[in-house]
Amino acid sequence: MKQSVTVLGLGNMGSALAGALLDRGHPVTVWNRTAEKAAPLAGRGARLAATPAEAIAASPLVVACVLDYDVLRALLEPDAEAVRGKAFVNLTSGSPEQAQDAAEWFGARGADYLDGAIMTTPEGVGDPGVMFLYSGPRPVFDAQEATLATLGDPVYLGTEPGRASLYDAALLGLMWSAMAGWLHATALVGAEKATAAEFTPVAIRWLATVNRFLTRYAAQVDEGRYPGDDATVDVQISVIGHLIDAAAARGVDNALPELLKSTMEQASAAGHGSDSFASLIEVLASK
Amino acid sequence: MKQSVTVLGLGNMGSALAGALLDRGHPVTVWNRTAEKAAPLAGRGARLAATPAEAIAASPLVVACVLDYDVLRALLEPDAEAVRGKAFVNLTSGSPEQAQDAAEWFGARGADYLDGAIMTTPEGVGDPGVMFLYSGPRPVFDAQEATLATLGDPVYLGTEPGRASLYDAALLGLMWSAMAGWLHATALVGAEKATAAEFTPVAIRWLATVNRFLTRYAAQVDEGRYPGDDATVDVQISVIGHLIDAAAARGVDNALPELLKSTMEQASAAGHGSDSFASLIEVLASK
Repeated sequence: MKQSVTVLGLGNMGSALAGALLDRGHPVTVWNRTAEKAAPLAGRGARLAATPAEAIAASPLVVACVLDYDVLRALLEPDAEAVRGKAFVNLTSGSPEQAQDAAEWFGARGADYLDGAIMTTPEGVGDPGVMFLYSGPRPVFDAQEATLATLGDPVYLGTEPGRASLYDAALLGLMWSAMAGWLHATALVGAEKATAAEFTPVAIRWLATVNRFLTRYAAQVDEGRYPGDDATVDVQISVIGHLIDAAAARGVDNALPELLKSTMEQASAAGHGSDSFASLIEVLASK
Repeated sequence: MKQSVTVLGLGNMGSALAGALLDRGHPVTVWNRTAEKAAPLAGRGARLAATPAEAIAASPLVVACVLDYDVLRALLEPDAEAVRGKAFVNLTSGSPEQAQDAAEWFGARGADYLDGAIMTTPEGVGDPGVMFLYSGPRPVFDAQEATLATLGDPVYLGTEPGRASLYDAALLGLMWSAMAGWLHATALVGAEKATAAEFTPVAIRWLATVNRFLTRYAAQVDEGRYPGDDATVDVQISVIGHLIDAAAARGVDNALPELLKSTMEQASAAGHGSDSFASLIEVLASK
């Protein structure tokens, strides 16, 4: 018999979570502010609860995914004692500070609490290749890991409740930077009639090489030493100048590479001209 | 019998090219402005030529990797007729315009010309997983592909001579953006004592998910339609605000996410608030 799970919140993401649990044979109880959202899941075997407290009472494990932490608090406050003795996994998006506050709130009411972040869009839920990040007490994670694996690959980040949320923000920032860089590159080659469909597979192959640089530079960051054996900041300042010239000649907006060049120049001015690109972290983290 | 190859220029990269060819059993003739650089390769069986023209005469295929296009032209000009009938593969870094000029120069002297770009550091040369980009006449590429595969995976980008150089610039820009985003993310989690070694494997896994977004968005860019089914620009403007707050609270420089947010706001103001992130290309490419 698979573990019973309650899912609070049936937006696109909450519905995907409940659906993945149903697909893998878990008894699922759901609650949503507007009950219509529950109809497709009820048709797949989910039990619809009338109140959050009734939903929480139905299962030892509760997974929440609502608009924000204030909404979550508001729906639990009327019967806060309902969470006592439950394992509560909160996949609502929020800040590290909100996760910390929530951990205290749940702890004060006798619930085991994990904070989490979903590193996919709803259609990726249930794919064992996508990451779900969790932070909170290790024994709570260990007890729920097998069930959480139904949703995606559970990655445990440590006891600090805000850690999953912090990683979430950091990873989204990385995503936007990579996507903006890809768009700039696509605009540049597009000016010479290369399609995005032609360019992107080459870009993705190249990012596999970039991943190897990241692994090398991670060790440099942790050591606080940045030997520029492969490519120095000063050489890269010169090379990015050529990129800016090529893009300017083709009418492509250069705000992004100009900022990258300026950050490299700050690193060089701070004495990192002969160091690797990883030395730029001294500029970013030193404010 | 493997094809004889001449390598002009024995900096770190040229030496790696010649070494990879020697390792795979090609007869190799080398030339460098200062002959001392050739000694290690001579010890591995390379023949050292006294002049560029003598080196070129020794092989049907010539690979050049020197400081820049001006240096290449200067070393060929004294005996420019030496290139007649040769296949000349130029892996020197330069602009698309320089590649175009070089193709005309070599064409006027009866040489087959390919322009190329090396998407690795010298230590990656010879790894079949790294990309070497080439552009120029297809028959010339086809004739040399088997030999060029000794250096890395040969990727053919079309007849336009400047295409390899243009992709090189575009891919480097993507690299800097991704690396800067990774550094910002690493600085953010580092403010809460997560090491780069802890964070980076999670970041690399996440980039595999980001690659799927790029593939989806490439089709949107080529269509000029950007349905925001997965995540709209307006929602992302709100979410990146949380990242900026979290980073500011931890003393991390926010110039990069501020620029990304501003670009998203420009896209929203241009009517793309309900579209996907891919719609930002309308801002980048419209200048």
